[in-house]
Amino acid sequence: MNRKLRMGMVGGGPGAFIGDVHRKAARMDGGIELVAGAFDINPRKSKEMGREQCIDPKRAYKDYQSMIEGELKLPEDERIDFVSITVPNNWHFPIARDFLQAGFHVMCEKPMTMTVKEALELEKIVKESKKVFGLMHNYTGYPMVKLARDMVKQGDLGKIYKIVVQYPQGWLVRPIEREGQQQASWRTDPKQSGAAGCMGDIGTHAENLAEYISGLKLKEICAELTTFIKGRKLEDDGNCLLRFNKGAKGILHASQISIGEENNLAIWVYGENRSLEWHQEHPNYLYVNQIDGPQEVWKRGNDYVAAKSAAAGRNTRLPFGHPEAFLEAFANNYCNFADTVRAKIERKKADPLALDFPSVKDGIRGMAFIDAVVRSKGRWIKLK
Amino acid sequence: MNRKLRMGMVGGGPGAFIGDVHRKAARMDGGIELVAGAFDINPRKSKEMGREQCIDPKRAYKDYQSMIEGELKLPEDERIDFVSITVPNNWHFPIARDFLQAGFHVMCEKPMTMTVKEALELEKIVKESKKVFGLMHNYTGYPMVKLARDMVKQGDLGKIYKIVVQYPQGWLVRPIEREGQQQASWRTDPKQSGAAGCMGDIGTHAENLAEYISGLKLKEICAELTTFIKGRKLEDDGNCLLRFNKGAKGILHASQISIGEENNLAIWVYGENRSLEWHQEHPNYLYVNQIDGPQEVWKRGNDYVAAKSAAAGRNTRLPFGHPEAFLEAFANNYCNFADTVRAKIERKKADPLALDFPSVKDGIRGMAFIDAVVRSKGRWIKLK
Amino acid sequence: MNRKLRMGMVGGGPGAFIGDVHRKAARMDGGIELVAGAFDINPRKSKEMGREQCIDPKRAYKDYQSMIEGELKLPEDERIDFVSITVPNNWHFPIARDFLQAGFHVMCEKPMTMTVKEALELEKIVKESKKVFGLMHNYTGYPMVKLARDMVKQGDLGKIYKIVVQYPQGWLVRPIEREGQQQASWRTDPKQSGAAGCMGDIGTHAENLAEYISGLKLKEICAELTTFIKGRKLEDDGNCLLRFNKGAKGILHASQISIGEENNLAIWVYGENRSLEWHQEHPNYLYVNQIDGPQEVWKRGNDYVAAKSAAAGRNTRLPFGHPEAFLEAFANNYCNFADTVRAKIERKKADPLALDFPSVKDGIRGMAFIDAVVRSKGRWIKLK
Amino acid sequence: MNRKLRMGMVGGGPGAFIGDVHRKAARMDGGIELVAGAFDINPRKSKEMGREQCIDPKRAYKDYQSMIEGELKLPEDERIDFVSITVPNNWHFPIARDFLQAGFHVMCEKPMTMTVKEALELEKIVKESKKVFGLMHNYTGYPMVKLARDMVKQGDLGKIYKIVVQYPQGWLVRPIEREGQQQASWRTDPKQSGAAGCMGDIGTHAENLAEYISGLKLKEICAELTTFIKGRKLEDDGNCLLRFNKGAKGILHASQISIGEENNLAIWVYGENRSLEWHQEHPNYLYVNQIDGPQEVWKRGNDYVAAKSAAAGRNTRLPFGHPEAFLEAFANNYCNFADTVRAKIERKKADPLALDFPSVKDGIRGMAFIDAVVRSKGRWIKLK
Repeated sequence: MNRKLRMGMVGGGPGAFIGDVHRKAARMDGGIELVAGAFDINPRKSKEMGREQCIDPKRAYKDYQSMIEGELKLPEDERIDFVSITVPNNWHFPIARDFLQAGFHVMCEKPMTMTVKEALELEKIVKESKKVFGLMHNYTGYPMVKLARDMVKQGDLGKIYKIVVQYPQGWLVRPIEREGQQQASWRTDPKQSGAAGCMGDIGTHAENLAEYISGLKLKEICAELTTFIKGRKLEDDGNCLLRFNKGAKGILHASQISIGEENNLAIWVYGENRSLEWHQEHPNYLYVNQIDGPQEVWKRGNDYVAAKSAAAGRNTRLPFGHPEAFLEAFANNYCNFADTVRAKIERKKADPLALDFPSVKDGIRGMAFIDAVVRSKGRWIKLK
Repeated sequence: MNRKLRMGMVGGGPGAFIGDVHRKAARMDGGIELVAGAFDINPRKSKEMGREQCIDPKRAYKDYQSMIEGELKLPEDERIDFVSITVPNNWHFPIARDFLQAGFHVMCEKPMTMTVKEALELEKIVKESKKVFGLMHNYTGYPMVKLARDMVKQGDLGKIYKIVVQYPQGWLVRPIEREGQQQASWRTDPKQSGAAGCMGDIGTHAENLAEYISGLKLKEICAELTTFIKGRKLEDDGNCLLRFNKGAKGILHASQISIGEENNLAIWVYGENRSLEWHQEHPNYLYVNQIDGPQEVWKRGNDYVAAKSAAAGRNTRLPFGHPEAFLEAFANNYCNFADTVRAKIERKKADPLALDFPSVKDGIRGMAFIDAVVRSKGRWIKLK
Repeated sequence: MNRKLRMGMVGGGPGAFIGDVHRKAARMDGGIELVAGAFDINPRKSKEMGREQCIDPKRAYKDYQSMIEGELKLPEDERIDFVSITVPNNWHFPIARDFLQAGFHVMCEKPMTMTVKEALELEKIVKESKKVFGLMHNYTGYPMVKLARDMVKQGDLGKIYKIVVQYPQGWLVRPIEREGQQQASWRTDPKQSGAAGCMGDIGTHAENLAEYISGLKLKEICAELTTFIKGRKLEDDGNCLLRFNKGAKGILHASQISIGEENNLAIWVYGENRSLEWHQEHPNYLYVNQIDGPQEVWKRGNDYVAAKSAAAGRNTRLPFGHPEAFLEAFANNYCNFADTVRAKIERKKADPLALDFPSVKDGIRGMAFIDAVVRSKGRWIKLK
Repeated sequence: MNRKLRMGMVGGGPGAFIGDVHRKAARMDGGIELVAGAFDINPRKSKEMGREQCIDPKRAYKDYQSMIEGELKLPEDERIDFVSITVPNNWHFPIARDFLQAGFHVMCEKPMTMTVKEALELEKIVKESKKVFGLMHNYTGYPMVKLARDMVKQGDLGKIYKIVVQYPQGWLVRPIEREGQQQASWRTDPKQSGAAGCMGDIGTHAENLAEYISGLKLKEICAELTTFIKGRKLEDDGNCLLRFNKGAKGILHASQISIGEENNLAIWVYGENRSLEWHQEHPNYLYVNQIDGPQEVWKRGNDYVAAKSAAAGRNTRLPFGHPEAFLEAFANNYCNFADTVRAKIERKKADPLALDFPSVKDGIRGMAFIDAVVRSKGRWIKLK
C-alpha cells in the first residue's frame, strides 16, 4: 500500500447501521480515506455526518448527483477514487450506474439491484465503464470461508453431495417497523427493499456463501415463503429446497422471526470424501470431517491454514487466538477491492488474490435467486 | 416397583445392534428380567444368545411362533409378561399382531409397520387385545425433550411459527451394504426396510420428535429424496418442507451420507414468545431463548427442571452434571411402559406420567409420514 | 460372559445416591445379579430396599456382619461372589477387610479408607486374601479417558510438561447439611468423611484421573484449603500446585461452592509434542492438539478410536453419536472387575484389558493425596 | 467526536505485531489519525514504515528523542496530541517519561515498566505532567468484561469466594527465539522483557482482568514458575495460588508451552449468589450462573446488556450476532482514552464512562504482581 485511496459515500447518515460499518472497515487498514459523502436524503443530516467524519464541509453533499458534479470539478488528484453505496436497495442501481458512468469505481451494498434485468444492465455498464465494481457480500470476506472454498477447489471433498445453509435471525418477531425502527422500516417496505424481504436481505447472503464455497451453481429452487407477522408486506421467513449443478442437493432457510437467533449464518458442505462446517458467529473456526478419522478444527491465523489457502493467509490480520470478526471480514473486501482499484489506477495487473471480492457476477446470481424464490410459491423453479 | 416383569425378545441375535440396546435399557433399573427369546432366524444363533443372556435353554426358541406356543404352555406366573420386537421392519407387524392376539403386551421397534394400512390394522388389534403396546421412539425418552414438550404445553412459546428438525448421519456414505455390514444390509433393502430408506430409519424419528415437542400435527410435506450412492435401492438422503396445523411451517432433513455427522438429531422450535433448541448428542441441555433477555441453558437433574416439568423430573436418574445419555432415555421408555403394564396386570389406573411413552398413534403418524415423503416426489402432498 | 455373578451390597438404602448408581451400573450388561444386601443401618429400611430390589427377604440383612454370616451359610453356588461397599467413608475399611477375610471379592467406593495407614493395611489384606479388590474411581471407566491414557502410553505427547485438572461443583454453596440433606450431611462430617471434605470427596477423583492418564506420580503438593461456609467442619474448596515425577508441573483445584459448576471434572495434559483435553460432562469427546496442525476431536465409538486404543474400544457399548455417559463408565468398571472375578473363580488368567479397573494401589495414592493436602497448609509437602 | 486527534507512535516497525494492532485499533473509529512515528531503531526501517503509513516523511523520525524535538517544533495545531508506545518492555518507562515531561499524552503498552520502583516513579510523573496516561491492557476493553465488572459492582454475585483465571498459550513450546522469531526473541530476553517471561507478558493480563472484574485486590501469591525449554532465560510457565482481600481465594496460571492453547485467557468468578465465566476467544458471551435456575448466556449487542451495563453498551459497535473481537476491544481503549484526551484539551470534564481505560494504577498493580511472582519461589509472598 503506498497510495491512500479517496473514498466517497452515498448513504450512512445518522442512525444508519451498515454505512458506519463500511466506514470502520474501510478505515481500519489505513489505505482508504473518507473524503466526501452524500450521507442522507436530508441535506442537514448529510452535513452533520460530514462534520462528525471530519470531512471538508464542501464535500458533504446534499444528494448523490451533486456529489458526482462536485467531485468531477475537483482536480483528479483530490477527487474521490471510488464511492461506497450504502442506501436502501431501490437506490443501488441508479446510483451505481451514475457513478460508474461518471468514471468512478464503485463499492455497492447488496442486493445489487431490484430486478434481474437491472442486474444484467449493470453488468454491461460496468464492462463499458472499465471501472472496478465491488459488491459487499461481506461474509465471503472471512478467511475461514476462503479456506473452505480453497479446500473444495483443491478437491479435498470430492464430488459435493449436499449443502445445508441457513441464515436465521429473530429481530423482526415483533412488528417494530411500525414503531419507527429505521432498519426495520425500509427492509419491510417492498418499494425500498424489492420483491423479497427476508430472502433479499439475508437469504441472498446464504445463497452467495453456498455458491462461493462450493463453486457450484444453484439451478432450481422450491421455496416456501411466509409472512408470520400480520400486516407485514414482505415475507419474514423462507424455507427452500435446492438443486445445484452436478447433482448436488441442498436446503436453504432464512428467517427474521426466529427468536434467539441473532445472525446465525452457517453452512455445511458434504462431499463424497470430506465435509465442512462454518458458523458466522464463531468465524475463526472451520470444522472438517473425514470418513474414519477425528474431526479437525482448523483455527484462523495458523501457519497450516495459510499453507493450505493463500487467500486465508492474506485475509488475516491477527495471530491465532486473537479473534477476528465481522468488521475484519468486511475490511478484507475493502482491502482487496482497494488493491484492485490501485492496480487499475496504476495500470498494473492486479494480484489474483486481490480479485477475490464479490462483484457484479455475484449480484446477478443474487437477483436470479430472489427472482426465483419469489416466483416459486412452493413449486420447483429454474433460476434465470 | 414391587414386581419384576418378565420380558421376552424377538430379534437381538449375535451382531444385532438395537436388540442389545433394548436388553441393556430394560435391565438397567431392575424392574424387568429377560427370560425368553427367539433371538435369531438361525436357531443355533438364537440358542447361543440365550446362553449368553443366561436364559433357560428351553426358552431360547427357534422362532417367534414357537415362542408364543412355548410361553403359553408355561404357568401364568412364569410366562413372559411382554415381548420386545427388535427385528427388521417387515417383521414388526406380523409379530406384534401375533403376540398381542396371544395375550402378551408388546414393545416394538419403529417404524411400526410397512404401510399405513397395516398401521391402522395394528391399531385395531391393540384396541381389541386390551394389551399395552409401546413403540420404541427412544428419543422422546430424554428428560430434556419432555421438558421442551411441557414448556410448549404450558404456553411459554406462544403460537409456534417454525420448526427445524434434522437427523443427519454419515455412516452410509460408502456402499457398505455390499461388504456385508449387517446393519447396512437390511436397512438398504426395500423388502426388509420398506418404501423408504433414510426417511424410514431416521426421518421418522425427526418427525416424531417435532410432533411430540410441539403438539402440532404435520399436515403437508414437500420432499426431495435422493439416492447418492449408485446402486443403492432406497434413498439415502431427504430434504422436506413442512406445513403443520395452526399455520406453523418447517424443515425436516435427514441423511445417511453426510460425512462427519454421527447421530445429529436436533430440533429448533420457534414460537412467538420464546424458542427452544435441543441436540441429541448433547442431550442434557435445553436452550431456551426469549425476546430481549439472555439465552437460558436448562440443565438436566436440577430442581428447577423438575419444578417446571414433572415428566423431566420423573425420567431422570442422576444428579446434575453426571451426564445421562442414550441408554437412559431408552430405559425411560421401558420404565414407563413397564409401569403401565404393571398397572394393567394389577388392574390399577396407570400413573398419567407413566403413560408418557410412544405408542400405536405415533406408529400411525410415522407410517403416514413415510408414505407422504415417498409419494411427494418434489410436490406438496397431504399426509393421510 | 457365561456366568452371572452374584452381587451383595452394603449401603445403598432408601435415599442413597451412589448405591443406586452401583446397582444400575452392575445390572446394565446382564452379567451381574444383585441377590443380597445390608442396605441400611436401619434394619427396617434394609428390608424395604430388599423388597424394592426383588431380593429374597432372608437375604436383606440387618447389618453387614449378619450378611457375612448369612452368606457363608449358603451353599457356595448360591452365596454372593462379591460385595459392593457404598457406605460413608469411615466404614469402607472395616467392611472391606471383613468381607475379604471371609473370602469374598470386593468392589469398594472411594476414598478407600480414612488414613494412609489403613490403606496400606488393606493392601496387605487384599494380597493375603487372594481376592479381587476393585475401587470405584468411576471416571477412569470412560472410554475416552482410556484413549487418552493410551495416547500418552504410546508416546504421542512426548515428555509431559504440565497437567491442569479440576473438579468444581457448586451444590454445597449453602449449608444444606444443616437442613438434613443426606448427601451433604455425612460428606461434611469429619467422623464419617475423614480428614478432608471437598478434597476427599472429589479432589481424589482429579488426582486419580491425572495419574491414570499421564502415568506420572504426584510427588509434592502445595495446597490451600478453604472453608467458605461458616460453621462447616471440613474444607469446601481447595487449590493445589503440583509437582509430578519426571519434572512435570500442575494445578489441581476442586470446589463444592462454585455456583454453576455441576460436576465439571476436566483435565488438560500438555506434552512436548501434543496435548489432550477431556471434560466429564461431555465425555464422548477427546480433544487432541498438535503443534502446527488443526485440533483433532476424537469421538467415541468410531473405528479409528478402537484402532488407537483397544481399551477404548472394549469399554464402548454404543455406536458413535449415540452418547454414552456416567452410568456406562461406571458399568465399565463393573464389567472389567466382574471379568477378573470370573477368571479368578474359573482359575484362568484374566484378560489384560479386564484388569483395567482401579484397585488398591489407586486407593493408597488417594489416601496419600488426601493426607498431603491436609498437612500442606500452604507449604510444599511430599506425598507419603 | 468533533476533533480528530493526532497520534504519534514509537515502535511498530516492519514485522512488529502489536504496533500494527495499535494503528488499526486507533484508526477504526475515525477519531484518531497517525501523523508521526519513530517506528524502528533502524532509521531506514522507520522511514519505510512511515511511507507505508502515508506519513509525511519528515515526521518518520530516526528515534524517539528526535521525535519529541521535531514535534515540539511544529505549531501546536499540527503537533501530535499523544504518543503510543509499542516497543519492548525495557523502553516503556524512559519513553513514557520523556513524552509526558515534554507535554504529550501517552498510551503505553504493558507491562508499564521493568520494576515496581519505576512504576511508582511514573505515577508521580503522570501526576505532575497533568497529561492523560493510558496503559494498553486491551482485554478489559471487551464489552462483556465490562458487563461482568458491572454485575459484580451491582452486587449480583454477593461476596466473592473464588476466582480462577488463566492465560495459556503454546507458541513457545519450541525454542523459536533461537530461530530469529522476532516476537519470541525479545520476550525471552530478560534485558528487554524484565524479570519475568510468561508472567510478565501474559500473566499480568490475567491479574489485571481478575482485579478489574472482581474489584478485589490481590494480596498474597504463592507461585511456581518453570522454564520448560532448556536454555531459555525466562520462565515459560507459571502456576499461582492467590489470596485476595475480603477473603477471596484463587488460582492464576499462564503458559507459553501449552500446545493447542492459542490465546486462551479466561476467567471464572464465583460469588455467594452467582458466578460468571468469560473466554477471550469467544468474547461476545458472558455466562452467568445462579443457584437453582438455568445458566444464562448474555450476548453482546443486545438491549438487555446495555440496560444492565452502560459501559458494555457504550463499548459496542455492532448489533448482536455480528461478532466483535480483539481489534474492537483494543479500539475501545483508544476511544475512551481519546475522549478523555479531548476533554482535557477542551478543558472539559471527561465523561465518567470515558475514564474506563487502564491507567497508571493498573501498571503499578501489574509490576507488583510480577515482582511477587518472581520472588515467591513456591512460598507465599505479599504484594508490594
